[in-house]
Amino acid sequence: MSTKHFFPSTEGVVVLGLESLVARNKHLALDAPNKVVYSKTHHPSKVTVISGGGSGHEPAWSGYVGDGMLAAAVNGEVFASPSTKQVMAAISHVPSDAGIILCITNYTGDNLHFGLAREKAAGMGHNVAILRMTDDVALGRKQTENTGRRGLAANMYVLKLCGSAAEDGYDFEKCMKIGEAVNANAVTVGSSLDHCHIPGREHHRSVPDDTYVLGMGIHNEPGLHEKAPMPAVEEIVSDMLKYCLDPEDKDRAFVEFNPDDVVCLLINNFGGMSNFELEALTTITRKVLEKDWKITPSRIHVSCFETSLNAPGWSISLLNISGIERQTNTSIHTLLHLLDRDTKAPAWPRNGYKESHLPKKQAQTSSDNTTETTAQKGPKVDPSTIESALRAACTAAIKAEPDITKWDVQMGDGDCGEAVEGMCKGVLARLDAGLCQSGALFHILDEVEAAVEEIGGTLGAIISIILASYTSQLRLAVAKEGEGLEVDVKRSGQAAGQALKNLMGYTSARQGGRTVMDALIPFCERLEGEADLGRAVEAAEKGAESTRGMKATFGRAAYVGEQGAETQQDAPPDPGAMAAAIFLRGFLDGMGTKQ
Amino acid sequence: MSTKHFFPSTEGVVVLGLESLVARNKHLALDAPNKVVYSKTHHPSKVTVISGGGSGHEPAWSGYVGDGMLAAAVNGEVFASPSTKQVMAAISHVPSDAGIILCITNYTGDNLHFGLAREKAAGMGHNVAILRMTDDVALGRKQTENTGRRGLAANMYVLKLCGSAAEDGYDFEKCMKIGEAVNANAVTVGSSLDHCHIPGREHHRSVPDDTYVLGMGIHNEPGLHEKAPMPAVEEIVSDMLKYCLDPEDKDRAFVEFNPDDVVCLLINNFGGMSNFELEALTTITRKVLEKDWKITPSRIHVSCFETSLNAPGWSISLLNISGIERQTNTSIHTLLHLLDRDTKAPAWPRNGYKESHLPKKQAQTSSDNTTETTAQKGPKVDPSTIESALRAACTAAIKAEPDITKWDVQMGDGDCGEAVEGMCKGVLARLDAGLCQSGALFHILDEVEAAVEEIGGTLGAIISIILASYTSQLRLAVAKEGEGLEVDVKRSGQAAGQALKNLMGYTSARQGGRTVMDALIPFCERLEGEADLGRAVEAAEKGAESTRGMKATFGRAAYVGEQGAETQQDAPPDPGAMAAAIFLRGFLDGMGTKQ
Repeated sequence: MSTKHFFPSTEGVVVLGLESLVARNKHLALDAPNKVVYSKTHHPSKVTVISGGGSGHEPAWSGYVGDGMLAAAVNGEVFASPSTKQVMAAISHVPSDAGIILCITNYTGDNLHFGLAREKAAGMGHNVAILRMTDDVALGRKQTENTGRRGLAANMYVLKLCGSAAEDGYDFEKCMKIGEAVNANAVTVGSSLDHCHIPGREHHRSVPDDTYVLGMGIHNEPGLHEKAPMPAVEEIVSDMLKYCLDPEDKDRAFVEFNPDDVVCLLINNFGGMSNFELEALTTITRKVLEKDWKITPSRIHVSCFETSLNAPGWSISLLNISGIERQTNTSIHTLLHLLDRDTKAPAWPRNGYKESHLPKKQAQTSSDNTTETTAQKGPKVDPSTIESALRAACTAAIKAEPDITKWDVQMGDGDCGEAVEGMCKGVLARLDAGLCQSGALFHILDEVEAAVEEIGGTLGAIISIILASYTSQLRLAVAKEGEGLEVDVKRSGQAAGQALKNLMGYTSARQGGRTVMDALIPFCERLEGEADLGRAVEAAEKGAESTRGMKATFGRAAYVGEQGAETQQDAPPDPGAMAAAIFLRGFLDGMGTKQ
Repeated sequence: MSTKHFFPSTEGVVVLGLESLVARNKHLALDAPNKVVYSKTHHPSKVTVISGGGSGHEPAWSGYVGDGMLAAAVNGEVFASPSTKQVMAAISHVPSDAGIILCITNYTGDNLHFGLAREKAAGMGHNVAILRMTDDVALGRKQTENTGRRGLAANMYVLKLCGSAAEDGYDFEKCMKIGEAVNANAVTVGSSLDHCHIPGREHHRSVPDDTYVLGMGIHNEPGLHEKAPMPAVEEIVSDMLKYCLDPEDKDRAFVEFNPDDVVCLLINNFGGMSNFELEALTTITRKVLEKDWKITPSRIHVSCFETSLNAPGWSISLLNISGIERQTNTSIHTLLHLLDRDTKAPAWPRNGYKESHLPKKQAQTSSDNTTETTAQKGPKVDPSTIESALRAACTAAIKAEPDITKWDVQMGDGDCGEAVEGMCKGVLARLDAGLCQSGALFHILDEVEAAVEEIGGTLGAIISIILASYTSQLRLAVAKEGEGLEVDVKRSGQAAGQALKNLMGYTSARQGGRTVMDALIPFCERLEGEADLGRAVEAAEKGAESTRGMKATFGRAAYVGEQGAETQQDAPPDPGAMAAAIFLRGFLDGMGTKQ
């Protein structure tokens, strides 16, 4: 991750961030001096669930405030517990006749400050309890016998189910029981490629290249092990899951997972990993879970749940819903309802688990089939003429491949000749397979277009577009004027003119830009204007030749900075334009040999 | 950002990521060979809105599939356009009798491949149009006259409003008109601290330290300018907004913003920035908008909308809703409805804009006031005895400060003496202000606790907890037994015993751990057991002395690795435990001088 930041230090940043959250969530309010975000709509007849801790874990904690999750969140400075005064302020903003649950991660400062707040609130007559969240499995029982385990991202499952239960009107004892059972049935293990960096502070240390850290926490603590060289991603995931699930690991095995238990999976981004990788890691986790442990998660949640600033890491959490059922006598159905029910908490991820009844969808008729059935309809052409023309065009272009390649090597990336050859060989293969036998023009045009499209690249796309658009124009004319439509050179010229106009909507290249358009534009315009194929081919050739010494002005280069392309007086002609002209000349000649 | 990755290359990663998205969204389906994600519930009577482009921008594009936004998304490889065949597959999965809109960012490959698909689909009789999204303002009119402008994160506003209109049953022309008007009224400018890094590829280049890039795109292109040294964050935001809004910038000023126009603000994380900074940048943007441009956004959306893998950057987008109203004759009310209405697209952020009518909330009675009014009630003590005891205790502890500091410097961070002195001076100041005059025990205890709490730290928290809990125990007893309750040494011992038990719920430190608990535990246990303050103080002193040569085993150190604390035979006593014992001895002596 980057050690660069927009803010020079963390000073004032926590409150600025909370202001942002509250500004776009009208149901939330901010007590800025106490860094407390609270729900404006929490009803005092419902149990109040409050959480909090250090900042730097955004969207934790305040992103989870909203009916159906937290009534309030208390935020300390980066990685530092809020003070007791702040916790007391949170309690005062969301009072409850039903009781108050303070959900805390099990760090020393949080224990003490929330603990003190509990003692003070209890003295004021509040029914208030502390619920410790302790899902980390990186350290085993021996190492954590004094301190207890840390809270990591499965915390969010505690907050969601406990908050949902409160919203559904469950009483204090039941909310506590569910919350504690969620925690008792949740495990998390983290993994990271590096530490995070705090604005304005010395960098903690960089994890060496080709090394990852297993058992990483979210406060820049050292992890449990560093592993190098980096194993394959499946092996990393497999190692992580063993820490969560292995019943033989007597120092861990914190949660029992039985066959057929209903299990949820939560994947947390530490903040600096691309979503691109995170989503793929989720699938790998799902596959390893299935393969090694026969677990198919009933619910999957993927998000930045509880970050460590910009750390390039992630964690896997598993929640055994069946374990909660056994411990609380609450049915799986009810527990899943509590998990899936909507909440106003802005950071709880959207997901598809409320959409239970989907309409059956009929199998789609694929577009290819549609094309297939209509392709044989429409105008007929003389099979031998069109075959001869196409063969001659392809042969001419293939013969010119060495020149095309040479020109492209001088000014481009040298693959133009190969692309042209590929397109033409594709057409020839189709001709060999009897493409022209039926004389069905649309079928022939569709197949030629397909052969060009297969090769891809910008040149292929441009030729494909003009061919497809030309064909579409003729199809529309048939639809309008009937099957008897004759495709003469005039009609062809009109279709080519319109196809050119359509093509020019997709590329900004024009005449003088040193592209295939230098041949195509004069060709189509002449064909439309004069209805004479020979004159049109001449125009294409003239246009292609005009690209000699021309400067390139199009393509992605034009998006960036002030880098002008170089002008070269002795530049070769544009290989794409030349290829088009050569192809068209071959086509004309091929027609002639049959006429 | 990190150049390290969990995946060694991008091979296969795109499909793995799409599988993850679809696995947790049952209303979505995946055509894996074509990398198309589509809605299972799209109704063919509604306009089909499709988008797509290169991968590496997650959650774009597939995260926006869902009724009310996209019917399908087509995904290329990282930063590469999908092929025409893939686009055709998307069209085949979500056919529409009302028409198909292909929303594309204005890059060369997307133009060509989606363009070809449009031509082919049109030939098959589909009513299909291309909607280009071009919100970037980094490059002006001159530099983009050939290519047009790029699409950046305001794309999401196009997809949201166009998709919402389709879901609401608007016809093809109206959907297109709204979509085009959204694009015409949207501006975006990006900014980044560095480029992103693609797994398995050479690193593009690192932006130098203390430098940021203005006008950064999302494909690792060079930005418009690099600026060094880093200006203050307000200045960066101010510069960015000028590119979006300055009507004097004739080469830009792409969108007109009039006074009182309804404007929306969208803040996009490029993927590698901490949410911590992103939220704060949002507030800075809001403030600069207000100050420099008198714009107060009606809607604010903040998320990873359209990322550039793990780039540590962000963009600001502004949408002029009033401009859309003027252009389409659609009312602001309707346009905001389209923006706010729910969607099943998983990546559209939750926000509070549907909660229009909030119940008025009564001002809370603050907890401080509650304490104030009840503090004077309850048992009375002899004012001069308690004052003398507290003064003697504080004086003794302050006198011992040099020793406490010395001991702490040897084994800790040296601030314990200062903390103890601070607490005691706070108590003395309150005594000077007449704290004990009323003899109201609860008031005195609350204030002493407040003085301790103000200093903070672990020692302060522990003393505060036991004091607050002791006070709460007595309050509960009064509530139960009535105002006449006498607080004798037996009653005090019971309260202290229970307070100790409560405290032990918040800290794992026990006797033998070299903390203040080595004094507090024997003190409270003896006081409860023998109801004799003198004997209890002796026990505290003995416990404190026992910490000489003792090894520390608690605190955050215990969470990490295998680092054992060192044993030191000649270690000084624990400064916190000694401070507590000295305070208690002083308290006892002070009582004695009055008895």
